[in-house]
Amino acid sequence: MKLASFTHRGRPGYGAVIGDGIVDVRPRMPRLHSLLDVLRADALKEVMDVAANVRPDFPLTDVQLLPPVIGPEKILCIGVNYGNRNEEYKDGSEKPKYPSMFFRTPGSFVGHGQPLIRPPESPQLDYEGEIVIVIGKECHRITAEQAADHIIGYTLCNEGTIRDWVRHAKFNVTQGKNFDRSGSIGPWMVTADEIEYGKPLHLTTTVNGEVRQDDTTANLIFDYGALLAYITTFTTLKPGDMIVTGTPTGAGARFDPPKWLKPGDVIEVTVPEIGTLRNGVEDGL
Amino acid sequence: MKLASFTHRGRPGYGAVIGDGIVDVRPRMPRLHSLLDVLRADALKEVMDVAANVRPDFPLTDVQLLPPVIGPEKILCIGVNYGNRNEEYKDGSEKPKYPSMFFRTPGSFVGHGQPLIRPPESPQLDYEGEIVIVIGKECHRITAEQAADHIIGYTLCNEGTIRDWVRHAKFNVTQGKNFDRSGSIGPWMVTADEIEYGKPLHLTTTVNGEVRQDDTTANLIFDYGALLAYITTFTTLKPGDMIVTGTPTGAGARFDPPKWLKPGDVIEVTVPEIGTLRNGVEDGL
Repeated sequence: MKLASFTHRGRPGYGAVIGDGIVDVRPRMPRLHSLLDVLRADALKEVMDVAANVRPDFPLTDVQLLPPVIGPEKILCIGVNYGNRNEEYKDGSEKPKYPSMFFRTPGSFVGHGQPLIRPPESPQLDYEGEIVIVIGKECHRITAEQAADHIIGYTLCNEGTIRDWVRHAKFNVTQGKNFDRSGSIGPWMVTADEIEYGKPLHLTTTVNGEVRQDDTTANLIFDYGALLAYITTFTTLKPGDMIVTGTPTGAGARFDPPKWLKPGDVIEVTVPEIGTLRNGVEDGL
Repeated sequence: MKLASFTHRGRPGYGAVIGDGIVDVRPRMPRLHSLLDVLRADALKEVMDVAANVRPDFPLTDVQLLPPVIGPEKILCIGVNYGNRNEEYKDGSEKPKYPSMFFRTPGSFVGHGQPLIRPPESPQLDYEGEIVIVIGKECHRITAEQAADHIIGYTLCNEGTIRDWVRHAKFNVTQGKNFDRSGSIGPWMVTADEIEYGKPLHLTTTVNGEVRQDDTTANLIFDYGALLAYITTFTTLKPGDMIVTGTPTGAGARFDPPKWLKPGDVIEVTVPEIGTLRNGVEDGL
């Protein structure tokens, strides 16, 4: 099932995307005000049962989608995590021993259909198409084999980045990864029962229809199991936490000259089993 | 006024520390369940009025203090931010152009009096005494001159670090800065009206009574105004967000051989105008 958070005529809601319609679950679950509440209450099955048995309340085109889980405690993004196959053939030893990672704030992301904001400080707004795993159960020190039991769904991310600001300091990419509204998450969360765990997913990112990123999760250096085993060594993951699992080669910074995003561009991140996350670009403050 | 969050006989509360006692504000403010709720509702004055006119409900020794603001959206820590005076005299040009920064999770901190946890993965648990500014009003793109109006209080942090894990990846110190319960915040938040903005604060960190860090905020490379002006360029700060403003020289890693923390050690971070944050160390999972 596809679960989404949204506003409808300014009113917040969450529910299921059924065909071209939306079932608004919120008025039917008075105790649970958001999808985050649902995950924290371990009530996803209840929500899915409610949504499966009613007609959509309004067409999908009438709502403004938001990131599917709003305000989770942690949004943890993995750095370079797709092996370049050619390089790997030449020198397998280049594989890093541990993943690189950093946090992003909820405010650095908009939902599907909302514009990414290019700030006045820099023209170097860049895209990064990524798959996001959403945590369903609190976990600490789990094994790679236990990871699948803790993933409740999948969504997509355009992990938009202000390239020059990720190198403002010697360590830590924090600033360039956290400009307000510089990235997006969505369009919805597909529940884990619909996606065979471990099956390679094909990810593409296009800008104005031109394919820029095209790879599959078979090339992940650290797969979901390895990531969750490593991450939960140091931190306790909680329901609603999101792991943004890394981007393939082909971001705008990798071209010579670089291809930065500009107002009017349209970026689409697609994984067929999940959907397409589409955003424009606007200048803004 | 000193505002604290705590548990008393297992029940969560928040309120004011008056002498050796605690005024439990929570039952007196039924709408506001936490200090974070209070800050979000801009109701600090109301809380201070309530607390000022009643007798303490129980002695401070009867409560378990928690970090003063629990679960804020952002805890943003500043990297190297105290200039080494000797080095500065030799070469002023070494001053970095921008501050380095990284996020920490709420779960990586305990309150005053609770043990820091040394994880089984590493013996390199280290202390870092720091001053924390707490944000009272949402702010985006403010100037250095506007900073004081947005700081609602001050607290202390032992920004405990697993040193070898901060270098697991080429960039980003995330892992070594986010082990569960590896740092502490507290003992309470002193409201901004009690501390003259910009007046140098004297920070010391001791381990088992031995002074390891001793400096004043006159040596900050980026003062609070510079930090808030820079940070709010990219992100919107919200009520309850905390900026952990950096540590002076003298962390255990700077000694040869390094002086790591071990079970039984007691670390005290003190700023006379704020208080003393004291924690022991235990081995744990």
